[in-house]
Amino acid sequence: MLFHDPPVLPRGFRCASRNCGLKPSAKDLALFTSDIDAAAAAVFTRNRFPGAPVILGRETMKGGVLRAIVVNSKCSNVATGDRGLEHARRMAAAAAAEVGSVPEHVLVSSTGVIGVPLPIEKIERGIAGLSAELQDDPMIGAEGIMTTDTHPKALSASVGAATITWVAKGSGMIEPNMATMLAYIFTDAAFDAPALDRMLRASVDLSFNMLSVDTDTSTSDSCALLANGHAGTVSEMEFQAALTAGCIRMTEILARDGEGAKHLLRATVRGAASDGDARRVAKSLVNSPLIKTMVHGADPNVGRLLMAIGKCFESVIQPGSTDAWINGYQVVRGGARLEFDERAVRAALAAEAVDIEVALGAGVERAVAYGCDLTKGYIDENAAYYSS
Amino acid sequence: MLFHDPPVLPRGFRCASRNCGLKPSAKDLALFTSDIDAAAAAVFTRNRFPGAPVILGRETMKGGVLRAIVVNSKCSNVATGDRGLEHARRMAAAAAAEVGSVPEHVLVSSTGVIGVPLPIEKIERGIAGLSAELQDDPMIGAEGIMTTDTHPKALSASVGAATITWVAKGSGMIEPNMATMLAYIFTDAAFDAPALDRMLRASVDLSFNMLSVDTDTSTSDSCALLANGHAGTVSEMEFQAALTAGCIRMTEILARDGEGAKHLLRATVRGAASDGDARRVAKSLVNSPLIKTMVHGADPNVGRLLMAIGKCFESVIQPGSTDAWINGYQVVRGGARLEFDERAVRAALAAEAVDIEVALGAGVERAVAYGCDLTKGYIDENAAYYSS
Repeated sequence: MLFHDPPVLPRGFRCASRNCGLKPSAKDLALFTSDIDAAAAAVFTRNRFPGAPVILGRETMKGGVLRAIVVNSKCSNVATGDRGLEHARRMAAAAAAEVGSVPEHVLVSSTGVIGVPLPIEKIERGIAGLSAELQDDPMIGAEGIMTTDTHPKALSASVGAATITWVAKGSGMIEPNMATMLAYIFTDAAFDAPALDRMLRASVDLSFNMLSVDTDTSTSDSCALLANGHAGTVSEMEFQAALTAGCIRMTEILARDGEGAKHLLRATVRGAASDGDARRVAKSLVNSPLIKTMVHGADPNVGRLLMAIGKCFESVIQPGSTDAWINGYQVVRGGARLEFDERAVRAALAAEAVDIEVALGAGVERAVAYGCDLTKGYIDENAAYYSS
Repeated sequence: MLFHDPPVLPRGFRCASRNCGLKPSAKDLALFTSDIDAAAAAVFTRNRFPGAPVILGRETMKGGVLRAIVVNSKCSNVATGDRGLEHARRMAAAAAAEVGSVPEHVLVSSTGVIGVPLPIEKIERGIAGLSAELQDDPMIGAEGIMTTDTHPKALSASVGAATITWVAKGSGMIEPNMATMLAYIFTDAAFDAPALDRMLRASVDLSFNMLSVDTDTSTSDSCALLANGHAGTVSEMEFQAALTAGCIRMTEILARDGEGAKHLLRATVRGAASDGDARRVAKSLVNSPLIKTMVHGADPNVGRLLMAIGKCFESVIQPGSTDAWINGYQVVRGGARLEFDERAVRAALAAEAVDIEVALGAGVERAVAYGCDLTKGYIDENAAYYSS
């Protein structure tokens, strides 16, 4: 699929972002709007300690209609009790007043440190007047939602006469499950909320749900899809394909920008006995600290691939029929290490994107998981994240 | 329980170690012997790509009798196919000849890089004459089995008239499952093989199986318990208690010496609805990279505790009744972050042993998991392990 360069927002969608005083000077507040009510669907984190915005968001999404999304970074409003929920409601009300809508049509997100009270007055002051600054450039909104991301993240593509735009953030505490980090998808195609929900879940399952930076599932993961219909009807099949392609591309961008990461790590597992097996083994490969450090060091310690496959106790693994490749070089055949050109494999491991492919020889199912290498940068960012 | 200082071997057990040329100069070969046939039990890795020594070991242990254990470090003889199994058999035969026994009474272990052929001739030459160097000091044997361990590991304690001695190694690729890294336990108490098997599994379940350095389950994990009976009968209840206490202490020693580790991290979960829930949540806490880096940085980002509890989707988690403590300081009450003395908690996190305690308020089950912090030392050791 061809992505626009630079990305654009679909007709009727605009965004703005500001510094409202949560961070010293970087942007920490973003507003996304549709000029008319948009049909909408969303998925949220399965973590059992969801943040106040997620609790409120589940309620909001029952209506299937959104007019705006308001997001702050630096503080996630998680583990903040009843007061946190009250703050999330005030944030929705402030954004609704600013865009001339109702709080029930505003999705709220917060991202950042867990367990710290939300500075709601600063946010309310920041929201006031923000609608005068709305623009067509999705990168403006993407800037306002960053935490440890090294760059703002937005993509857009065309499907027939319609446009789809993805805006996301996420770098650490990332192994989404039935949801994702913060990702907002806007389209001017016309779909009702149940269709959006169906398509969003299908795409997320193949993309954000197969992403892991560090095995840690955030308490704030939220992914919403908004359709305002300005471009009219689009083939659902074409839209679903484009939606999935963009979600996968955004997943790769998030993985590559994982905290401290220098490499994108993609694990493709085929020949699995079940979809669950394929997904489990692919996730095991991208989550193994020993594979992640191998990729970081570009050191072809390929026995670690077998270790990570073999520890999937619940999956059908047939050692004698297991093969594996690194960026096209076969390194395992029939469950044993194959003699290979070590210099070539070392060079392949040094590429920015490292593809591990595993054929299990146990069936016909296939899955791809997305991750990154493990570096000292991850330690630096997380040993003092709270204080910094 | 009082451990001997220095540790000793039980009556009739001796050991020796040598450099046989696998490493440049450090010891890489160890032999443990009993002067008479000992009843024995063992548990091995559940990884689906077990090393040749594990495949052979499962066969050997069917007899329930051991006279010797022979171990090499530097090369694990894993993913080496039929030739690897042949090499393991030759290693057993060489040790049997050296101690005047039969190969069926020799347990073989290999640890080190996966997927490299075992230099069997060097090992056979190294075994020859080793019985002349047998000594009573378990540290001598412990030295021969080290890989990235920073020190040899042995413990001993008394139970009635009998002695129990633990010798182990392990530092990375450690999240044993139904087994452990390499751990050998010797006693002069008299028990038959079925009793040893029963007791070993019960102790391992509370100790080595609750250990994780990096979530990666080795292909070589092996834990054996040998009893030669020289001290006669001992109360099974007392023996079981001592066996468990020593296995837990050895687990703590292994965790503290995890690759790059500076802290022992212990997670105690109580009030769980089931034993499985307690174990799962405790493991989630010691395995979370964000908790491990928090401990490394002594940065009280306590929201991460809730994140790691809340991602245990299969467990009964009741956010409103969840409390948590760090080294005795309560930091979470009723699922929300509690105001606490930040300087005191920061100091507590800087202690060599960090205890996280979680009360789930969902039942009466309890579990303890053992891990360590995540540091740049782990990255250094594993980004170039194969080549170094």
